[in-house]
Amino acid sequence: MKGKKTDLGALDCGIARALSVIGDWWSLLIIRDAFRGEKRFGEFQKNLGLARNILSARLKKLVDAGILRTEPESEGSAYNAYVLTEKGERLGVVLLSLWQWGEENCFSEGELDRVMVERHSKEPLARLSLSTQSGRAIGMRDFTTVSKAEALPATRQ
Amino acid sequence: MKGKKTDLGALDCGIARALSVIGDWWSLLIIRDAFRGEKRFGEFQKNLGLARNILSARLKKLVDAGILRTEPESEGSAYNAYVLTEKGERLGVVLLSLWQWGEENCFSEGELDRVMVERHSKEPLARLSLSTQSGRAIGMRDFTTVSKAEALPATRQ
Repeated sequence: MKGKKTDLGALDCGIARALSVIGDWWSLLIIRDAFRGEKRFGEFQKNLGLARNILSARLKKLVDAGILRTEPESEGSAYNAYVLTEKGERLGVVLLSLWQWGEENCFSEGELDRVMVERHSKEPLARLSLSTQSGRAIGMRDFTTVSKAEALPATRQ
Repeated sequence: MKGKKTDLGALDCGIARALSVIGDWWSLLIIRDAFRGEKRFGEFQKNLGLARNILSARLKKLVDAGILRTEPESEGSAYNAYVLTEKGERLGVVLLSLWQWGEENCFSEGELDRVMVERHSKEPLARLSLSTQSGRAIGMRDFTTVSKAEALPATRQ
């Protein structure tokens, strides 16, 4: 990738920091597959059609970043399984936000036959939406960042 | 970027489709800056420290994708301003999900002094969370996709 990648992680911005870790679409697709239960190098490779050396590098980066961890694939196996850490699991909402945006904006009418649902009940998920801590819904443009001293004290209801 | 980028947009997956459009971290940072109100080529360039040719290519891609549109910077100006379309504005929730993950997972204690707030009241935003359409909160691992025929009919309350 081009550009000053290492600089990103130093910025005072949660988005830049997150992207410096996961802001590579192969990485996000590997994470997606890990959410689906894929664990083996060969499974990721087959799903993503990615060259072995690129996949290796991405997996290593995700392990180094604490998003995936390795464990023996089975009792006494020499092969590693890659599984999501807690930090990795917290990316679920990022994946869902991408899914919902993609679903709404990147398909033509009737083109996508898949729906995001709760695993057991098969009930569709609600659209993610923005609200304040007191529960007030806000528009997509109505957020900004301020220093902690400038923010209102949290007023959870 | 390496890999079979064009294939992604053909997959039956909202995440892959979204990433084929915005899955380049410079693009997401440009979008972030557009949310902040940046409009001018020079402003994006200064903020991102990006080479002119790379920035040009990314802006063009975002305009072609219908995420940004150009308008004259001011009456009679020969310069373009880049502004978010409605499709671009819908990415607010993706940016927020990245911010919240980055904030929680990519800074050391006390390192980040910035908080995401509602623009006018300065009230902090609620954490995005996953729930079904009937309002039941679900865990980060409890989602999957199924075909439309397999999903429960929506049961909004």
